[in-house]
Parts: sequence; C-alpha cells; structure tokens
Amino acid sequence: MNKEQLIRVTNYYRALIKLRAIGLERVFAHNLADAAGVTATVVRKDFSQLSILGQKRGGYQIVGLIESLSTILGKGDEQNAIILGCGRIGLALMHYSGFESDGINIVAGFDNDSNVYSDPSQPTPIYPTNRLEEVIRALKVKVAIITVPESSAADTYRKILDADVAGVLNFSPVTLKPTLMKNGTMSIVHNINVGLSLEQIFYELKFPKKKNVAPLHESLIEAN
Amino acid sequence: MNKEQLIRVTNYYRALIKLRAIGLERVFAHNLADAAGVTATVVRKDFSQLSILGQKRGGYQIVGLIESLSTILGKGDEQNAIILGCGRIGLALMHYSGFESDGINIVAGFDNDSNVYSDPSQPTPIYPTNRLEEVIRALKVKVAIITVPESSAADTYRKILDADVAGVLNFSPVTLKPTLMKNGTMSIVHNINVGLSLEQIFYELKFPKKKNVAPLHESLIEAN
Repeated sequence: MNKEQLIRVTNYYRALIKLRAIGLERVFAHNLADAAGVTATVVRKDFSQLSILGQKRGGYQIVGLIESLSTILGKGDEQNAIILGCGRIGLALMHYSGFESDGINIVAGFDNDSNVYSDPSQPTPIYPTNRLEEVIRALKVKVAIITVPESSAADTYRKILDADVAGVLNFSPVTLKPTLMKNGTMSIVHNINVGLSLEQIFYELKFPKKKNVAPLHESLIEAN
Repeated sequence: MNKEQLIRVTNYYRALIKLRAIGLERVFAHNLADAAGVTATVVRKDFSQLSILGQKRGGYQIVGLIESLSTILGKGDEQNAIILGCGRIGLALMHYSGFESDGINIVAGFDNDSNVYSDPSQPTPIYPTNRLEEVIRALKVKVAIITVPESSAADTYRKILDADVAGVLNFSPVTLKPTLMKNGTMSIVHNINVGLSLEQIFYELKFPKKKNVAPLHESLIEAN
C-alpha cells in the first residue's frame, strides 16, 4: 500500500470500529467513503486491490471486514512505543488516551531529570535515560517518540537506533533522516515540525495559490 | 514556490539566522546545502529561480541574503497565532519558545473552563471562548492552532472561519478540510494527526517497502 491508501484504509478501519460500537452489523462502500472523505468507487477499488470481497447488494459484514483490515494493517501484534523527553509535549502525549483505540500503547517515558523520572504521578513509568536499552528490550518496544529539546535530538536518535528501535516519531525541530541500522535495515522516521507547519500556513496565507478548483466538499470534517 | 521548495528556503533562512548569530558574514551554497540536507546545485537552482544573485567565488553576503529570503517568505508582517483549547497539548505549545525565532507570536489562548482562562500563571493570556471574535480582531490574528478534543474540533473550526481566520493548524484527530469562507477565499489547513503518524510507522515497520536505493546520507540530522 502506498501512503495515501494506507491513510484511507486506516480511516475505514477506525470508522468500522465506531460503527460496530454503536451496534451496526453491515456497512456499505458509501458509508466508508463518507467517513474517509472519498468516493464509494475509491473504497471499492481499495477493497478489490486488497482482495476483500463484499456482497453485491447486502454490503459488507462489519465484523469480517474489521478482521480483514486488521490483518492487512498488521494489527494484533504488540504496538509498544516509548516517549523520550518528558517535558510538556512528552507528558501531554503520555496523558493522551486516543492512541489506545488504535492498539498503540505508550509503555514508558525517559528523561534525564531525576525530578521527572522519580515522579510517580504520571500514567506511565518514567525511567532515567541510561536505562533505555534495558527497558526497550524488556518491553519489546518498536517505536520511539522524540520530544527532547533540539540540542539533544540527534544524540537521542542515535541511542534509539543503537537499541534497535527502528521507528521514530520526531517532534523536535531538527529534521531526522532515515538511517542504516546495525541490522542492515533503514530506520523509519516521521518528522512533525510544528514551527515549520506554522510558517507554511503563514506563507500560504500571504501568497495564496491560484484557485483552479471549486470547493468539492459540503461538510467541514473529513474522517476520524 | 511549491511545498518542497518552501521547506528548503525556510531551512536556508533558519540556517542563515544561526550563522549570522555566530558572527559569519559570508555563506556558500555548500553551507546552505548541508543545513537543508540537499546538494549545492539545488541551492543554486532555488536562488536562480528566486532571482537571488551570488558573487561567483565570494559566496553570498549573509545579511543581504537574509533580507531577500525574508521578503520572499513574507516575513516582517505580524504573524500572530492563537491556541484554541488550553489542555496539555495547547499549554505545551504556548510554553514552547521556538516559534519566536521564526517571527511567530502566540498572542492568546482560549478555553471554556473558567479554571483555565482565569489562570494568570500562563505565559500568554487565556480568554473564554465567547470572546474569540473580539480578541481575533483586536490582535490581528491570522492563524489558529486547534488543540480541542475530537468532539468539539469541527465546531471550533467553524467558529474560527466565521471570525475570518483563514489559517489553521489542527492537532485534533479529526481531519479538517479547506473550506470556502464568507469572503470567497479558501481556508488553509494543516492537519497533524499523531495517532495516524504512529500507525503509519508501525505499519511500515511491519511491511517494509522494497529497498531500491542505497543510503545517501552520512549524518543523522538534516537541517534545523
């Protein structure tokens, strides 16, 4: 799956979980299309590419569809992540409960400040950074969220790669690059740069793109 | 400028500000290339497209280059942003000092909770949400950062658009769409969905893309 398809399929999956929760048993391509902000044709094309078959008129069975998409999305395995740098952003992510519904568990935080890592009031244990490798191995951590200051981002990234964690979500303003690891694979990095996003928005406001399309959408929200 | 070029030029600009701060007077395309994680050829191409001329052998004067890029990036105007929803994420962004060096000011926060908006200990005044329009007009706000819960994101977005704020950085898990405003322009929205980013990383770890390129980079960090 390419990135766009992955986002769509994840959105179908999330919509299905919600539809199941309110007691529905069947769903139609049009329902999923609405939830993902695409057309029903796109949904059917995605499903056909992923070898998911629906009943022509009766729609799809939600339970079966959740199972198929769950396998396709690689869910079911432990999705354990850690947070490096438990300042305001790090703790905000630690307290956010929205990841659990996606099957993602924040299992530990790390910080160098003994006031931070000895604070028992946080929802997840926080360890001193020198225990990184040990905790990563014990908790089968696959992904690390970097919320350290700019000055220690590169160093933190190196430590994570050395501990064999290949997935990184980076909130520091330094752009981290995919890097070859000891085991021969490339790390996977997503950079979230809030400052750069804000600058882009201000720039686009100041120098608007040529309008060449009419607004297509009726509703304000696209998907969940 | 397209998005990629805008990111590169912003990175050149940030690097120049830092180089000036440490007392340098001249800079070469190679320096900026290193800072932005591109080649010197790309830097020269960008500058030629933007009609920036450098001395062939002596490099670029940093002060003049900052001035040119500043105009190109639309800096110099007031870049005032507000934060809607002063929970943990909202307050973390309010306390983050990294925007100022980009000329972006967080001028106000908004919240519905009277314990939050009457708290004088925050670095920026927080107002009750019913004062949104008034404050936006008084402070010439161009951009709003949405950090409200999922359930009120769409409603908050509507209020912002009604108050003529066209730029939105959305942290809620709801994907907000560009929308036609009363004044006939389209709003500009960047969605930052942390949960979706994490899911993508877990997915890419589980189903790695075919490696078809050798690692190109030596250093771990790309730019600042």
